[in-house]
Amino acid sequence: MSERRDTLETFENKYPDRDYQIEIVAPEFTSVCPKTGQPDFATLTITYVPAERCVELKSLKFYLQSFRNDGIFYENVTNQIVDDLVAILQPRRIKIAAAFSPRGGITETVTVEHAAER
Amino acid sequence: MSERRDTLETFENKYPDRDYQIEIVAPEFTSVCPKTGQPDFATLTITYVPAERCVELKSLKFYLQSFRNDGIFYENVTNQIVDDLVAILQPRRIKIAAAFSPRGGITETVTVEHAAER
Amino acid sequence: MSERRDTLETFENKYPDRDYQIEIVAPEFTSVCPKTGQPDFATLTITYVPAERCVELKSLKFYLQSFRNDGIFYENVTNQIVDDLVAILQPRRIKIAAAFSPRGGITETVTVEHAAER
Amino acid sequence: MSERRDTLETFENKYPDRDYQIEIVAPEFTSVCPKTGQPDFATLTITYVPAERCVELKSLKFYLQSFRNDGIFYENVTNQIVDDLVAILQPRRIKIAAAFSPRGGITETVTVEHAAER
Amino acid sequence: MSERRDTLETFENKYPDRDYQIEIVAPEFTSVCPKTGQPDFATLTITYVPAERCVELKSLKFYLQSFRNDGIFYENVTNQIVDDLVAILQPRRIKIAAAFSPRGGITETVTVEHAAER
Amino acid sequence: MSERRDTLETFENKYPDRDYQIEIVAPEFTSVCPKTGQPDFATLTITYVPAERCVELKSLKFYLQSFRNDGIFYENVTNQIVDDLVAILQPRRIKIAAAFSPRGGITETVTVEHAAER
Amino acid sequence: MSERRDTLETFENKYPDRDYQIEIVAPEFTSVCPKTGQPDFATLTITYVPAERCVELKSLKFYLQSFRNDGIFYENVTNQIVDDLVAILQPRRIKIAAAFSPRGGITETVTVEHAAER
Amino acid sequence: MSERRDTLETFENKYPDRDYQIEIVAPEFTSVCPKTGQPDFATLTITYVPAERCVELKSLKFYLQSFRNDGIFYENVTNQIVDDLVAILQPRRIKIAAAFSPRGGITETVTVEHAAER
Amino acid sequence: MSERRDTLETFENKYPDRDYQIEIVAPEFTSVCPKTGQPDFATLTITYVPAERCVELKSLKFYLQSFRNDGIFYENVTNQIVDDLVAILQPRRIKIAAAFSPRGGITETVTVEHAAER
Amino acid sequence: MSERRDTLETFENKYPDRDYQIEIVAPEFTSVCPKTGQPDFATLTITYVPAERCVELKSLKFYLQSFRNDGIFYENVTNQIVDDLVAILQPRRIKIAAAFSPRGGITETVTVEHAAER
Repeated sequence: MSERRDTLETFENKYPDRDYQIEIVAPEFTSVCPKTGQPDFATLTITYVPAERCVELKSLKFYLQSFRNDGIFYENVTNQIVDDLVAILQPRRIKIAAAFSPRGGITETVTVEHAAER
Repeated sequence: MSERRDTLETFENKYPDRDYQIEIVAPEFTSVCPKTGQPDFATLTITYVPAERCVELKSLKFYLQSFRNDGIFYENVTNQIVDDLVAILQPRRIKIAAAFSPRGGITETVTVEHAAER
Repeated sequence: MSERRDTLETFENKYPDRDYQIEIVAPEFTSVCPKTGQPDFATLTITYVPAERCVELKSLKFYLQSFRNDGIFYENVTNQIVDDLVAILQPRRIKIAAAFSPRGGITETVTVEHAAER
Repeated sequence: MSERRDTLETFENKYPDRDYQIEIVAPEFTSVCPKTGQPDFATLTITYVPAERCVELKSLKFYLQSFRNDGIFYENVTNQIVDDLVAILQPRRIKIAAAFSPRGGITETVTVEHAAER
Repeated sequence: MSERRDTLETFENKYPDRDYQIEIVAPEFTSVCPKTGQPDFATLTITYVPAERCVELKSLKFYLQSFRNDGIFYENVTNQIVDDLVAILQPRRIKIAAAFSPRGGITETVTVEHAAER
Repeated sequence: MSERRDTLETFENKYPDRDYQIEIVAPEFTSVCPKTGQPDFATLTITYVPAERCVELKSLKFYLQSFRNDGIFYENVTNQIVDDLVAILQPRRIKIAAAFSPRGGITETVTVEHAAER
Repeated sequence: MSERRDTLETFENKYPDRDYQIEIVAPEFTSVCPKTGQPDFATLTITYVPAERCVELKSLKFYLQSFRNDGIFYENVTNQIVDDLVAILQPRRIKIAAAFSPRGGITETVTVEHAAER
Repeated sequence: MSERRDTLETFENKYPDRDYQIEIVAPEFTSVCPKTGQPDFATLTITYVPAERCVELKSLKFYLQSFRNDGIFYENVTNQIVDDLVAILQPRRIKIAAAFSPRGGITETVTVEHAAER
Repeated sequence: MSERRDTLETFENKYPDRDYQIEIVAPEFTSVCPKTGQPDFATLTITYVPAERCVELKSLKFYLQSFRNDGIFYENVTNQIVDDLVAILQPRRIKIAAAFSPRGGITETVTVEHAAER
Repeated sequence: MSERRDTLETFENKYPDRDYQIEIVAPEFTSVCPKTGQPDFATLTITYVPAERCVELKSLKFYLQSFRNDGIFYENVTNQIVDDLVAILQPRRIKIAAAFSPRGGITETVTVEHAAER
């Protein structure tokens, strides 16, 4: 897991004294259900308030693509992406909502939030 | 009723120290009106913050299908599903909104919330 | 007015210890403008938290239909329906929004709330 | 029926040599179901190509309101309005689509066309 | 099958000399997949030009409800409903589109047309 | 300006002891840009909690039409309408949002709130 | 009328040998009802195939604004604009649809087409 | 390619004498761009008129999933799926529209039709 | 102009015997109004049936970007893009619709079609 | 940068004692990615509460157009526009949300808020 995390690149936040928000919508996330082997699809909405660093979008795209053929549950993949972005960015706040495509007529969205201790 | 509840399967929440939210939308709920014998249709939106356990989606699907030919009122079925999920999951918080299809030009949505005592 | 109110039927709330919400949307409300004699049309959205009693939907439908040929102003009809439902249900909270169809290029929505004293 | 028809007023078409189309949408039509006594609601879309006369909108509004407390079936009311407008306007072509509100989970739209013989 | 067909009631078309169209939308159709035993859901859109008879909507509702616990494939149920309505109504033309809810991320709509020979 | 204000008519609020809200949407507001002489168009949304008086809708329509050929800036016209309605109604609270049509690819909405002192 | 027409400016069609279509949507048309003195509002959709000349958009805007305080019926204003554009452009084909805002709960759209003789 | 084609299963069309249409929407198609190695995403809409055989949906789902890690251009993958379905089903008519997600701000949809010779 | 045209790259159509359609939507087109010097914005929808060659999307993106600071009228830019694509692709048919953003409350869409002679 | 800022014109706020809000939506913002040289597109939503001065819309349009060929990152351009408007207007509060068009299937929105110290 830490190898994957290391592919995330960051750049310096030029406005560290100001609380501002970056929202990233990635509608092309796909991984594989570990139980059935069937592909899952999701739209990820990542919202964060940067501290010293911002995530570089192209490296984020490759990072998200690296899950393409991994078997991983909805709840775990969402929490893991939060953990990786927190480790790399140490943001003031971050929230990720992963809205998965319907399966068996049922749709699930997992939403995880993390705030830095002050 | 307790038999139906026992068909709900759960799995371990791997992130119990983090407050996060799972939203499940089930647009294919159907039961029968106990007064008229006519079928009712609803979209259920289940939102919960897991504690130790999460509900397994396939077992939830079968649990919801088990109401298909039961005669039960809107208010009661919504409260009963909350009771069953609370008993099985003991979530930190749970909310269920059941939006029923129009009857006689009138639409009803029942929304029930439950929070664990702290 | 009290005669009309008496047509509203109620049933026992089986979950009186739980604060939950019932939303009823009735898009086919019609009455008559007392000034012009022209018909008015509205969508009523009734939201309440029941105490001991819930309103029976079929009797509510007939109650709402009883305004069909009555001449009554927007503000008065909305407040009167709140008064009637409060008298019959004694709900913990109730809100009614009546969104009337445009007249002379202008649309009006009247929203009335009532909460039980504690 | 002919009395109702006589309330429809017309005005002279100033461009009788040109085939052009007038579409009128009346979303506030209501009548009564002759079987159940319950009110029905519909959106009427009237499309016609005028010959010598156009229908005056205010008189059309009153004509449509005159059905408010009449018991009449979907199919019959749509055909009758076509008959009345044909008698009064003798249009080159006319089409009326009446889209009724759902009853018992089922929605019906009746569409009737009439063309003048040439 | 012919027993089910016999529950469909009809009424006389009062305007048999005019070609007009009746569209019925029934969004609450449900049957059971004969392979998996899982419920299927569909919105049926029935469009027909009546000859001597029109279908009575309440009997149509009960007829459609009678499939609720039957195991039958998408293609077959759509064709069977066309066959039953043709047998009962002998309409000038009829078309039924059955739009089924997604399964495994895939949605199917079956559209069947029938025209009377002239 | 006070002449225009005097055209606004009011009627007695029959429910002065209850805090309730009236929302009026007027999508056909038009005035003239004082700089360019070009017409401006806006949708006004007026929301207020009445005290002793409510505004009569027909007089409000004529009042709004009186701006049709006046040259006045977005910010000023919105504040002036608030001032006039406050003077006439002395409402508990009032908010007006004026959403103007795009000019040069840019859209402006002005929102003004006023609350009575208690 | 001919004075107004003369304010329309045109420019040379650089591609006269090719049949192509220009669609212009003008959502801010307003005139006055000659009967009631009340303002009317419409969205005009003008579609034409140019021959030798195209209409200059700024002059079209001023031309349409010139109706602002004129009393004129829906059907007449639509036909007159067609006549003016035909006189100025002599297009291969032109169609204007004028969709007026609802009055008394009723909406009217007038659609006029003109084709050059060949 | 022929191996992939062989995974498609079919079932007998019970209504071969009737021309009817089956529309299948598959919004979760994904393959890989052969030039950049980046994943592509598309919604496929498959519409066909069956002759003797219909395609079984579950086998179609696995067939479409088999492209997941293949490098193939938009135009080629769409034509190849048509070829495979024609070979297996020999339908009377078939049309496939593949609407790919935007790349570099540009979206492409490829639509291929095939009709049996008569 | 011919230099710009030369930046368009093509690739071989692998299915030249089949009439199929490629639709490209480019919502980020911008050029400059030659009269006012102000930027214009448009969504281009390019639809063509390829003969021997298809246009490569990346080169199309650069080609469209090359108009960014050019002063050119709506009608001319649309016709010129058609001319360039016809010269490079010699398609069986091509249609381009350019929907420009509103200016002065007025929106224009130019649609040009070209078909190869047979 | 300060030269660009100086092109912003302001006018006097006639209602400085009232807290009111001005929202400006500018959907035609475009700049250039400093890394790839490719154009970026965004919709800016500027919301502020004026103190002594309001921004003049035409000068704001030219100010925003001045970024057209500048290479600048999403986060920096959003913060810079906030800084320029704060310097010129000294508003009570201001918020700018810049929603950029998708790149590589990923969309970013940057939201910056600033409040005057009291």
